[in-house]
Amino acid sequence: MGYLRNCWYVVSWSQDLAIGQPFGTVVIDEPVVVYRKQDGELVAFEDRCLHRFAPLSAGRCEGDRLRCMYHGLLFEPDGSIAEIPGQEQVPDQARLRRYPVAEKHSWVWVWMGDPAQADEKLIPPAVGYDNPDFVLGHGQIDYAAEARLVCDNLLDLSHLSFVHIDSFGAGDEWAGRVPKYTRRERSIRVERWMQADINARTQASEPMDRYQVYDFYLPGIFLMTGGNFPLGTGEKLGFAEPDLDDAISGVTFTSQAVSPTGPRTARYFFNWGPHRRHGDEAFRDQLMVLAGKAFAEDKAMIESQQTIIDFDPGRNPVPIKADKGVILYNRMLNAMLAEEEGATAEVASHGWAGQPVEAE
Amino acid sequence: MGYLRNCWYVVSWSQDLAIGQPFGTVVIDEPVVVYRKQDGELVAFEDRCLHRFAPLSAGRCEGDRLRCMYHGLLFEPDGSIAEIPGQEQVPDQARLRRYPVAEKHSWVWVWMGDPAQADEKLIPPAVGYDNPDFVLGHGQIDYAAEARLVCDNLLDLSHLSFVHIDSFGAGDEWAGRVPKYTRRERSIRVERWMQADINARTQASEPMDRYQVYDFYLPGIFLMTGGNFPLGTGEKLGFAEPDLDDAISGVTFTSQAVSPTGPRTARYFFNWGPHRRHGDEAFRDQLMVLAGKAFAEDKAMIESQQTIIDFDPGRNPVPIKADKGVILYNRMLNAMLAEEEGATAEVASHGWAGQPVEAE
Amino acid sequence: MGYLRNCWYVVSWSQDLAIGQPFGTVVIDEPVVVYRKQDGELVAFEDRCLHRFAPLSAGRCEGDRLRCMYHGLLFEPDGSIAEIPGQEQVPDQARLRRYPVAEKHSWVWVWMGDPAQADEKLIPPAVGYDNPDFVLGHGQIDYAAEARLVCDNLLDLSHLSFVHIDSFGAGDEWAGRVPKYTRRERSIRVERWMQADINARTQASEPMDRYQVYDFYLPGIFLMTGGNFPLGTGEKLGFAEPDLDDAISGVTFTSQAVSPTGPRTARYFFNWGPHRRHGDEAFRDQLMVLAGKAFAEDKAMIESQQTIIDFDPGRNPVPIKADKGVILYNRMLNAMLAEEEGATAEVASHGWAGQPVEAE
Repeated sequence: MGYLRNCWYVVSWSQDLAIGQPFGTVVIDEPVVVYRKQDGELVAFEDRCLHRFAPLSAGRCEGDRLRCMYHGLLFEPDGSIAEIPGQEQVPDQARLRRYPVAEKHSWVWVWMGDPAQADEKLIPPAVGYDNPDFVLGHGQIDYAAEARLVCDNLLDLSHLSFVHIDSFGAGDEWAGRVPKYTRRERSIRVERWMQADINARTQASEPMDRYQVYDFYLPGIFLMTGGNFPLGTGEKLGFAEPDLDDAISGVTFTSQAVSPTGPRTARYFFNWGPHRRHGDEAFRDQLMVLAGKAFAEDKAMIESQQTIIDFDPGRNPVPIKADKGVILYNRMLNAMLAEEEGATAEVASHGWAGQPVEAE
Repeated sequence: MGYLRNCWYVVSWSQDLAIGQPFGTVVIDEPVVVYRKQDGELVAFEDRCLHRFAPLSAGRCEGDRLRCMYHGLLFEPDGSIAEIPGQEQVPDQARLRRYPVAEKHSWVWVWMGDPAQADEKLIPPAVGYDNPDFVLGHGQIDYAAEARLVCDNLLDLSHLSFVHIDSFGAGDEWAGRVPKYTRRERSIRVERWMQADINARTQASEPMDRYQVYDFYLPGIFLMTGGNFPLGTGEKLGFAEPDLDDAISGVTFTSQAVSPTGPRTARYFFNWGPHRRHGDEAFRDQLMVLAGKAFAEDKAMIESQQTIIDFDPGRNPVPIKADKGVILYNRMLNAMLAEEEGATAEVASHGWAGQPVEAE
Repeated sequence: MGYLRNCWYVVSWSQDLAIGQPFGTVVIDEPVVVYRKQDGELVAFEDRCLHRFAPLSAGRCEGDRLRCMYHGLLFEPDGSIAEIPGQEQVPDQARLRRYPVAEKHSWVWVWMGDPAQADEKLIPPAVGYDNPDFVLGHGQIDYAAEARLVCDNLLDLSHLSFVHIDSFGAGDEWAGRVPKYTRRERSIRVERWMQADINARTQASEPMDRYQVYDFYLPGIFLMTGGNFPLGTGEKLGFAEPDLDDAISGVTFTSQAVSPTGPRTARYFFNWGPHRRHGDEAFRDQLMVLAGKAFAEDKAMIESQQTIIDFDPGRNPVPIKADKGVILYNRMLNAMLAEEEGATAEVASHGWAGQPVEAE
């Protein structure tokens, strides 16, 4: 499957990158090293010395520069060679590949495609630690599965009624009714009103209406919020979007990022927590325990799904109504890939793309 | 190597499949799920939901039906869809692949080929817990080797004189004389009289004749019995088959099944124990200890053999007289494969098939 | 990458091969078994029984002969079959592949190519336990990396200034000046005078000149010695080779062998120790502790280099002055391979070979 290159991928939590400590990772099957200059500004390179391909992430920061610790080549933040031990002249034209890198919403983002198109405005509006309204916890999980399968999971929350019975205690409502999908420019909005939901997580003792909404930004950012409203609010609003400031409880926000590392591996970053008016650190910690349990359930399901797919990768899925988001996502992704590299043919062969979609 | 499809493969012990607990396995590189309906009757499906390929073995039995626990599709025992959450209509024509499944001789058998040809009469006459004459113990071992190599091992017991010196305490007799091989319709009979055998396992204190016979049913069922007779019985009978009811001691029965799971993996099921007139539970337990040791010796040898083969898979073996059973087996298997799918050419390239065989 | 066949590869330490205990290993991706006859003489075969490919290294020595412990074929030291259980005639023409094997300088060497060209004079002049002048310790390490990368490491000691800061405490000198490379018939000599070196390992308290020299015999034997001389000796000698008998301290010798086992694996054998006039067993033990630490640093670097290379194996390195030895090595190796099997084209594609080299 082709990877989208002209997009921002999350590679780390902002707070995990200390000045002077190069960090090696893998994005769309390419090794990447990220480090901070003395002023905190980030630099991202291919994690491969020009000389004999040692990883620069095993290197040493020297001020703003990064030294390969195999034979000592020293690189400027622009990727040029500052120094080669044992020789006076250094080749002018040799350059490490440099990736645009950004820091926003507590995440470090890398742009793997055409640098000229790297626009920070394309970074989705996640909620990070710099947002004082939310009390957030966070975590990350490595998947032995394609990023695509993790995205599918997030694009169809009907699985809550089955995968997460023991964690979220989700009822039939999630699977019973297909939510509203709206195609946006680079994202899909998914909304649902759940009437008379008794949400155990908010200790609500009486029936309420719950509004839940997420935006899934392609290729893999999931931003979800919602809140509880007095019984009947949904109907009163004609099931339109409410003002979350009017919620009486249960307003939380979760930002999640699915980053493809290799053909069968992905890294999943998530935070979650209540709005300060709707919960405190103790509640955030409860949510983290819950997330730990629920995301382990997802991981088990998705990795076993990958195992089954690998027995016979050519199968075509039988589409159901709940696939709306997945189908919409695949259409949009295919279009973006096609625009980027004429990759339609290859991607369409996945079999998701040819399904009917009503939500547009 | 091609797999025979029109045959019964053992996938489990009967007693290991409880009502309501789907069991996932792999047979000839295909994922299979087996479960029991409320009345105990077995159902076997491809272990792959039609929708997004999640394993049904991670699903939930609901009465006689099986629900995928990813997005909730519910399947009837005939493989049709009973329910799709979130939609009223379900596609009529969509069907899970269903495999014929049988339960006999304490084993669960699955037929991977043409269902119309699935005939329970083709299940070999193994001895299971339903046979009151024998006191049986059992076990199973997963092999990191092709099923073919485990079958070869069982088709040529001359290896007892070398591999099993420390466990069975087998002497030169096993390798010293080639037994009698008889080709039958779907099996090979292998018989030998061992004169003046002192069989430590029966605590016999004086020399006796031992008769040992097994039927190897293609592709991988091994059924062996035998018994001890007064010295000279073999000669008196012209080394023909005796009546085991006349044995004075040492009558045991072992049923063994070699099931290919993947191209380099197999699962091996075995039971073993004395006839009630020739041994009790304590003796059975001794045999199990012995089997545990001996089968670990086989596993070490066969897995290292696989490792060596994989360095250069194209080599042709140098045939010896003891190969009679292996050669006969490969000829019969090739013929069955050819009949089944015109697969002769591919299989014959294994190099075993072109050897001279006298036993027919 | 093609492997050189007409050369001696180290497979074991002499003292690790006891009479009667067959030893299995892998050389250039071929399984090899080595054993000693009763008189101590070595025999090396393919580690694969002619019959059904069981490893002979799991076999049993019977006098000078080796028996396969699967079905009992017995082999003569010349590779012919001495005995096949169950049959009287053995095929005359069947022969195990036999490799020339030699024992020299405490190592066991195997020749994987044309036996007619196997000449013990081609064994490099390593220093082993049979040399009474040195007090040696030894060890070995398995690499998850191509042998080629381990050789590159040894052919360019400029890495000491970076990889081994914490172990050898090597200073900038190693990387700062390219040593003298001299091409010899089947080896490369690498020499350097380090002026005013304070060599902590010799407890030298005053500045001295250090001379360090190694011969790298293709494809993978590294033999290094050196010694400390009064300050100014290097200059006085015009930086030519000194007589090591004149060294005032610090004369050690290390023999190292890099043996390719598979396409991404290698085994590395090393000894090291002082000349008896320059150190004792206690000093040797200090050197072994140091080697343990330093070689673990190399292993971490080289295995991660392999990982990075495997992401995109087609890249061409940017050459630097310190590559002289590596480039020279690759040219010589390519020539030898070309002579051996017309393999130039394949090997040249590695990208090292096209670089300018001055040292000839």
